[in-house]
Amino acid sequence: MESTRPALRLTHEAALKAVAAAAAHAGSLGIGQNIAVVDEGGNLLAFLRMDGARLLSRETALSKAISAASHRQPTARLDPELELKLAIAAGGRLTNLEGGLPILFGGLCVGGIGVGSGTGKQDIACARAGLEAIGADLPDA
Amino acid sequence: MESTRPALRLTHEAALKAVAAAAAHAGSLGIGQNIAVVDEGGNLLAFLRMDGARLLSRETALSKAISAASHRQPTARLDPELELKLAIAAGGRLTNLEGGLPILFGGLCVGGIGVGSGTGKQDIACARAGLEAIGADLPDA
Amino acid sequence: MESTRPALRLTHEAALKAVAAAAAHAGSLGIGQNIAVVDEGGNLLAFLRMDGARLLSRETALSKAISAASHRQPTARLDPELELKLAIAAGGRLTNLEGGLPILFGGLCVGGIGVGSGTGKQDIACARAGLEAIGADLPDA
Amino acid sequence: MESTRPALRLTHEAALKAVAAAAAHAGSLGIGQNIAVVDEGGNLLAFLRMDGARLLSRETALSKAISAASHRQPTARLDPELELKLAIAAGGRLTNLEGGLPILFGGLCVGGIGVGSGTGKQDIACARAGLEAIGADLPDA
Repeated sequence: MESTRPALRLTHEAALKAVAAAAAHAGSLGIGQNIAVVDEGGNLLAFLRMDGARLLSRETALSKAISAASHRQPTARLDPELELKLAIAAGGRLTNLEGGLPILFGGLCVGGIGVGSGTGKQDIACARAGLEAIGADLPDA
Repeated sequence: MESTRPALRLTHEAALKAVAAAAAHAGSLGIGQNIAVVDEGGNLLAFLRMDGARLLSRETALSKAISAASHRQPTARLDPELELKLAIAAGGRLTNLEGGLPILFGGLCVGGIGVGSGTGKQDIACARAGLEAIGADLPDA
Repeated sequence: MESTRPALRLTHEAALKAVAAAAAHAGSLGIGQNIAVVDEGGNLLAFLRMDGARLLSRETALSKAISAASHRQPTARLDPELELKLAIAAGGRLTNLEGGLPILFGGLCVGGIGVGSGTGKQDIACARAGLEAIGADLPDA
Repeated sequence: MESTRPALRLTHEAALKAVAAAAAHAGSLGIGQNIAVVDEGGNLLAFLRMDGARLLSRETALSKAISAASHRQPTARLDPELELKLAIAAGGRLTNLEGGLPILFGGLCVGGIGVGSGTGKQDIACARAGLEAIGADLPDA
């Protein structure tokens, strides 16, 4: 029996770079966003709340990042008939809101990025900009 | 007046055996699962998060186990029109998601087993494998 | 800039084996224990509450496991003058109670094991038995 | 009667710059830190957990930042005889651990920076590097 298996971890430089790139994209859209990057275990690595971002969207951004990391897929892909049941049973953190993307390298999940305060489309675009900046796998648009 | 009554309690050996059997079944399906066994009081007895299991499904697995032990019946048997109201009123732990089974011996409930991360059908199959391994009553398929 | 760095993860088989070995040692001492194994991110991997274990020691066992994983050293090594301040500032999870050991392989931390319900000496001995069973580094006795 | 009064707010660019500078200083010390910047309302503006930083020190870093912003003075200046009573009565967030500095411009407080995972002296040095990078007032050394 092997007691350990090899894995990848996101560096903090990459986490910070993803946050900064997502913020730059939000700036180009003329909006303020909350941006959270978590590791594979759902623990916060980097965060930024931009000027003008909605205060409570800090938590939605975090929930999106954790949900994407947990399920290793973009948020908003859960069965709509189950999403509220799943959210409640999971203690509130599992969200099906748009704006969370897993951070994958060669298909291996090392965390998630979540953006919240804009429209769903804006949130996704900013999260995507974060992934692009660090060379992570991009989900189908 | 009798002040006490005899009761049954699940042993920790049985709880661990049920978890291991559910995990073995998940392995045979090629998936990773979160598996929780609780006692009649809804308190955790044994738990395992397998490699590849979704992080947030840890809480759904636990909610399923507690719900099955509480209501002494498989989850997913609540009236769908009431399930969200019941979940919220019960503090969030009561879930109607598939994958929770009561642990009964001769009809007496000693706890619950909950499995989460797969499809509803996979979750139920793994929970059932846990019950079979310890000789507990099996619900109708 | 590298976006990822190589890491190790504890397998779930090893987590379960460590819990079972710690429980066997507790059995040889004639006591019941709560035993928790968490990964590097402090998330629960495996757990067992033995017959006779104190109910609330479930949380102390978990706190010990998380603290050992977080600080990558056995618990009870914090400055006693700071320990309460640190516990409160860290949100309650950081404990300086005996009975938590980091799970290290070749010096690399992949998680922690925490045991609670016995004396400090018994808790440490059971945690140590868990590490031995999976070939992890052993702290100085 | 005036219903409003002018105020200062820290920009998110400055928050991120302070975090990056504190991280660079930690790097020069060869350690990993958790670094949090909050606004005057104690709400998180920017955060970074560096590779190697202790997981649970995330919360102590945040507690230090909030405490410094709240009291508009460096942490560790509370009466040691009162510090635990104050921490508990304040809901756990008020800490007297070293490593939190208020963010002041011309004596006006716009937030706080907190650093946690190193020694008290290291934490203060990193927080101070954050203040220097954004031209904030520096406390007496």
